[in-house]
Amino acid sequence: MSKHMVLMDEHELKCINRYWSACNYLAAGMIYLQENPLLKKPLEACHIKQRPLGHWGSSPGLSFTYIHINRMIKKYDLNAIFIAGPGHGAPGVLAPVYLEGTCSEIYPDKAQTELGMRNLFKDFSFPGGFGSHCTPELPGSIHEGGELGYSLSHAFGAAFDHPDLLVAVMVGDGEAETGPLATAWHSNKFLNPIRDGAVLPVLHLNGYKINNPTVLARISHQELEELLKGYGWTPIFVEGNDPERMHQEMAQALETSIKSIKDIQQNARTKNDTSRPRWPMIVLRSPKGWTGPKTVDGHQVENSWRAHQVPISKPAENPEHLAQLESWLRSYQPESLFDAEGRLLPELAELAPRGTSRMSANPHANGGLLRQPLALPDYRQYAVMASRAEGALHSNTQPLGCMLRDVLSANPNNFRVFGPDETSSNKLQDVYTASKKTWLADRLPEDDDGGELAADGKVMEYLSEHTLEGWLEGYLLTGRHGFLSTYESFVHVIDSMFNQHAKWLDMSKKVSWRVPVSSLNLLITSTVWRQDHNGFTHQDPGFLDLVVNKSPEITRIYLPPDANCLLSVADHCLRSTDYINVIVCDKQKHLQYLDIESATIHCTKGLGIWDWASSDAGSEPDLIMACAGDIPTKEALAATQLLMHHFPALKIRFINVVDLYKLTPDSEHPHGLSDKEFDRLFTTDKPILFNFHGYPYLIHRLTYRRANHANLHVRGYREKGSINTPLELAIQNKIDRFSLAIEAIYRIPGLRNIGAHVQEELLNRQLACCEYAYEHGVDMPEEDEWQWQK
Amino acid sequence: MSKHMVLMDEHELKCINRYWSACNYLAAGMIYLQENPLLKKPLEACHIKQRPLGHWGSSPGLSFTYIHINRMIKKYDLNAIFIAGPGHGAPGVLAPVYLEGTCSEIYPDKAQTELGMRNLFKDFSFPGGFGSHCTPELPGSIHEGGELGYSLSHAFGAAFDHPDLLVAVMVGDGEAETGPLATAWHSNKFLNPIRDGAVLPVLHLNGYKINNPTVLARISHQELEELLKGYGWTPIFVEGNDPERMHQEMAQALETSIKSIKDIQQNARTKNDTSRPRWPMIVLRSPKGWTGPKTVDGHQVENSWRAHQVPISKPAENPEHLAQLESWLRSYQPESLFDAEGRLLPELAELAPRGTSRMSANPHANGGLLRQPLALPDYRQYAVMASRAEGALHSNTQPLGCMLRDVLSANPNNFRVFGPDETSSNKLQDVYTASKKTWLADRLPEDDDGGELAADGKVMEYLSEHTLEGWLEGYLLTGRHGFLSTYESFVHVIDSMFNQHAKWLDMSKKVSWRVPVSSLNLLITSTVWRQDHNGFTHQDPGFLDLVVNKSPEITRIYLPPDANCLLSVADHCLRSTDYINVIVCDKQKHLQYLDIESATIHCTKGLGIWDWASSDAGSEPDLIMACAGDIPTKEALAATQLLMHHFPALKIRFINVVDLYKLTPDSEHPHGLSDKEFDRLFTTDKPILFNFHGYPYLIHRLTYRRANHANLHVRGYREKGSINTPLELAIQNKIDRFSLAIEAIYRIPGLRNIGAHVQEELLNRQLACCEYAYEHGVDMPEEDEWQWQK
Repeated sequence: MSKHMVLMDEHELKCINRYWSACNYLAAGMIYLQENPLLKKPLEACHIKQRPLGHWGSSPGLSFTYIHINRMIKKYDLNAIFIAGPGHGAPGVLAPVYLEGTCSEIYPDKAQTELGMRNLFKDFSFPGGFGSHCTPELPGSIHEGGELGYSLSHAFGAAFDHPDLLVAVMVGDGEAETGPLATAWHSNKFLNPIRDGAVLPVLHLNGYKINNPTVLARISHQELEELLKGYGWTPIFVEGNDPERMHQEMAQALETSIKSIKDIQQNARTKNDTSRPRWPMIVLRSPKGWTGPKTVDGHQVENSWRAHQVPISKPAENPEHLAQLESWLRSYQPESLFDAEGRLLPELAELAPRGTSRMSANPHANGGLLRQPLALPDYRQYAVMASRAEGALHSNTQPLGCMLRDVLSANPNNFRVFGPDETSSNKLQDVYTASKKTWLADRLPEDDDGGELAADGKVMEYLSEHTLEGWLEGYLLTGRHGFLSTYESFVHVIDSMFNQHAKWLDMSKKVSWRVPVSSLNLLITSTVWRQDHNGFTHQDPGFLDLVVNKSPEITRIYLPPDANCLLSVADHCLRSTDYINVIVCDKQKHLQYLDIESATIHCTKGLGIWDWASSDAGSEPDLIMACAGDIPTKEALAATQLLMHHFPALKIRFINVVDLYKLTPDSEHPHGLSDKEFDRLFTTDKPILFNFHGYPYLIHRLTYRRANHANLHVRGYREKGSINTPLELAIQNKIDRFSLAIEAIYRIPGLRNIGAHVQEELLNRQLACCEYAYEHGVDMPEEDEWQWQK
Repeated sequence: MSKHMVLMDEHELKCINRYWSACNYLAAGMIYLQENPLLKKPLEACHIKQRPLGHWGSSPGLSFTYIHINRMIKKYDLNAIFIAGPGHGAPGVLAPVYLEGTCSEIYPDKAQTELGMRNLFKDFSFPGGFGSHCTPELPGSIHEGGELGYSLSHAFGAAFDHPDLLVAVMVGDGEAETGPLATAWHSNKFLNPIRDGAVLPVLHLNGYKINNPTVLARISHQELEELLKGYGWTPIFVEGNDPERMHQEMAQALETSIKSIKDIQQNARTKNDTSRPRWPMIVLRSPKGWTGPKTVDGHQVENSWRAHQVPISKPAENPEHLAQLESWLRSYQPESLFDAEGRLLPELAELAPRGTSRMSANPHANGGLLRQPLALPDYRQYAVMASRAEGALHSNTQPLGCMLRDVLSANPNNFRVFGPDETSSNKLQDVYTASKKTWLADRLPEDDDGGELAADGKVMEYLSEHTLEGWLEGYLLTGRHGFLSTYESFVHVIDSMFNQHAKWLDMSKKVSWRVPVSSLNLLITSTVWRQDHNGFTHQDPGFLDLVVNKSPEITRIYLPPDANCLLSVADHCLRSTDYINVIVCDKQKHLQYLDIESATIHCTKGLGIWDWASSDAGSEPDLIMACAGDIPTKEALAATQLLMHHFPALKIRFINVVDLYKLTPDSEHPHGLSDKEFDRLFTTDKPILFNFHGYPYLIHRLTYRRANHANLHVRGYREKGSINTPLELAIQNKIDRFSLAIEAIYRIPGLRNIGAHVQEELLNRQLACCEYAYEHGVDMPEEDEWQWQK
């Protein structure tokens, strides 16, 4: 489309191309060189790193795009950040970041000098140095991209509620094959042109992955255009390999895109028009390893998968390869780009923006700089009446919905609630009275009857856990706050994203200039124990087993037993930074154990003895009945009551655990109890029954070093499920009141002999409950309606 | 498009509509009724289930499609199966399956009688009964759909290498928002019209999810058409709500689709034309809850999210609702569909296919019926020379590539190899000499130089772990064999799919008429310990922590320490059924410890003492050095050697574990050692150092009940990583030779006092190694090249 338009005059064109040459030279240098960075001397084997590492393939396209966006930033005074989706793209980003000075400002040993350049080269993809992805150490990065697929959802998360921000996001065509990326294109149905910023995707048709062509580069132009239009975008194609023409076309494509974005925003903002725009995007089809060696050893390298990583192998050992590498490096004419001291020549340096206009120094990419603490209502006002024996059941999550509603109201521009089509199902529907669901796709009249849709909603619902998690991460990393609720079983969909975000936070904490960001708050609900007709597929409490693998500096796990505890925990989590807070709490109606003050104290301690449910009165107990999780708590209480009824003299200590990491030694996690504290609670020699929400082994994993571990007997989900009533499911997995009481009789010295008839009675009641469930499809009323009565 | 064509005469139209009414009646009956199935009596509260459960919303569209495909099966004698993607769609599939007789044949209590119908109704979504997804208990199902997103990839897996099969797959528009589904549309670039069957997707624009409209139903017709064409399909739209017109249009759309499929296949097969066809697909836009109540309590229900689940609530308690339910049920005129005994009237019954032509009785949906064991070469022929002290390193995975090559050759129609762009990277590239990578997207001349692409390849590579896993599951469940390799860190992408497949297999084993299918073989490679420039994002060995949560009847974990052990393990896995075999083995070059006969014996035992590395000579050892995984094994061996060098009299027992479940008690897993066997190996009182591949806690989890657990000290990955050399990464996480030897000196009674100087010397060597790595970017040669020399 730009064939007849020339946006840049010859001088500008030449300069931008030289700037790009400088980027490409640096990228290649990072992969290969440990000395002689300016090639002042002929290239020798000793200048080559012992093990050249890094990825050349996507670098030229990345820096090409980066510097053209720089041009737009300067021309239009844009506020922009850059997200690099393609794998191992760091050289293509590090290069322009170094050239615009940010790298040297933050890392003085990487100054714009010959030594600084040598250090940049040597430390790239080197122990203790820069990674080959856009790691937290890289200024301007909010997206590492080690695992592929999340660049686009991160970009949207960054743009939400930042009306002046432009998020330029390079999407790799390999990455584009992943599921998370494939569905993230639809994020444009959730971006409001009035209150949100703009996302400008550049789909990089680099052509090849590690060893294969990419699918999107091997379908017809027409199909690709239809696909992107079908996703709701207006694609602009920049295709070719001649740098001169490509610079002009990219400049034109960006002019068109920026103009279109400005028009869309201006129209929407002046006319209050929230109809869905067809936002522009760019398709950049350029050769993989562009400007690199055309062929090596007779095989095509440029524009081939062979350009993916190190294009010329073993130059230190192979003189021919050394010569080819030197000739390639010299093709960029470093002496015409840098002065003798290693500084970029002034006429080139001035092409970059200045100060915080540089994408690498934009505070949005170090979101803690912008982060304002949430204005939080007093969570106590949402408390429910504790009514463990009064028959007034209450949903555990519904009061949290009220609290989140008021958090939404009090923080209109920096807080959002996320959930995959399940906010109502998870009983958080009160949020809609403060803010509706964001929706810019088509509307129908019937939506007005309870649809809760609005262009300016702050509740984000889309049936892709990947997209929601990506949006939320992008939102947090650019300085805001959020809360995601999801079905327990399907949180595994984002296991890998959780892992990667935990790793990002863990690394970020070690990067001195990164300012803490808000924690990622994840409510896991619709839990294993209340699946009813959903069945076996919806029963998986194993996410916690993954969480505990990640750094103790980052991970927190809470299992509030009732609504008031959930409020207290949520309030704590919403104030915290740099954690991933995982909260497990069921959405259904349950008994409510603690009033709000007791709940606050209990949650602050993280675990504790419930005196009202205990009979040891501070003396040595016969048994410790411990529990974590709402439904296991109820069953443990019922079991305690059964035991007290049959054995009134029995001394039972009832312990509820909210903060799971309390169980682990303090040497392993900052929340861990000291052995002394643990032993005081759990004794060193009394039997412990622990009724756990998840897979039972997790409790053993956390406690195996404790003195009394040999006496710890854990019940939890054991993969026994189908269509069950709640009590029958508990029975199948032996976390029910009867199983616990029967086990307790077995475990308490002296009770086993005299308790056989009680065990038999309990077993009969258990069987009767199962039979009732199989006959009626619901639980036996007297058991279902069990309440605490001491 | 069918406006002027009428395919069905009035009689046929009337019959098919009555058949559909029967389906809808049954679906509604399943949700509500426990008695009075034929409505012979006026509906009363006592006829209603105590807790009506199930999902009405997607059922009518599902059965509508099912019976129209039946029409095609009868007309064209098709060989077809049906995959239901929409969530909770079981009533819409169970209904036609019951009507065509399969259900009654398999479950005699669900006969086509009044009592049988009552049993069908009552047992639906009821403890012990049918689930509300298409569970393994449902005849004809290979896809449960409890978790959404995998219907389309399952369908393609089923169609591969089944040239005569038609896989009709209903894709829900909620499901279509998931990432895995969004990228699976591109599977058409991997389907060969000559050797593979056809996949006919029916995208069901049902309009709503649980509480929201769906995105695909709320974009313009033009955008949707572009999107699907962009994905490479030829969409045919069937849109409306008038049953009569919709029946004609669906009949026409299916005629067009089947004709197009036949034309494509005939053209390809007669002309050997493997150019990529634009396969037909259908978009069915119909109201959610079609034919159900229009409004309830003044709110729109039909064509709204309110039709999702139980459309009329609490009819047993609310007389108005009871009346509305009765009127809805009677609108299908059950008395005109079933005779007084409850049997479908003959003129309707004859609409269904017969015998195995019924989709519910097609043997492809009970794949074990079709499964032939693999023709397997003798794995011993790929053995490498064991050379633990001869300096001849060998990739652990490359010989497996040779074996898989010959498996491909010997089993041309029922075995495929899967990997996300990483088959070569994982050193399995020898497979290409037997079969190339399937590729029907565009080809370029340069592909001929090592591209290894072919339309008839059997190696499946696409950068979506979701799609590969889905293809493989579909392939296995329809009676074939496969092998998937993937990067360790990113296997977490398919955590949830693993969970769901494990649950499917677990349930299937309990369904008497399901015949065992081939195991899912998953090689996890490019492991945590050899990430080099990939860094922290690529370091996550936590998949195993998930695997152990699933049923011991299903899961197997192997950590072969070298190439020959990997061959032996792989041979075993390829012969097995109904398991998920997880094999962890690094791809890089390593020392080779065992010759093939020793490897076979070792792997068959699953763990064992390596006499050649031990110095206890059968007597009581001072220390047990145990290990699992290739790199931990090398470090444990080096540590053992260091200890023997410094303390020649020390008695060390060296144990290597291949089959991880050997560690767990035999009461927990069929592979578990008895306590007696375990104690014989690990003693009851000697210190054990266990060097583990993954997170160390997993070993504690498996062994906490063992007598000697208190003396077990585990080393493993502790989330300490960045850009590291292999040895330096080991040191960071304390699995290296020095850390182990230092720890051993500390743990062995009597050695601590005399060994302090050795500890100091080892510490210095360790520090020197780190310094060398940070200086040179590679490991210190003498340590890197360490070999076993006793």
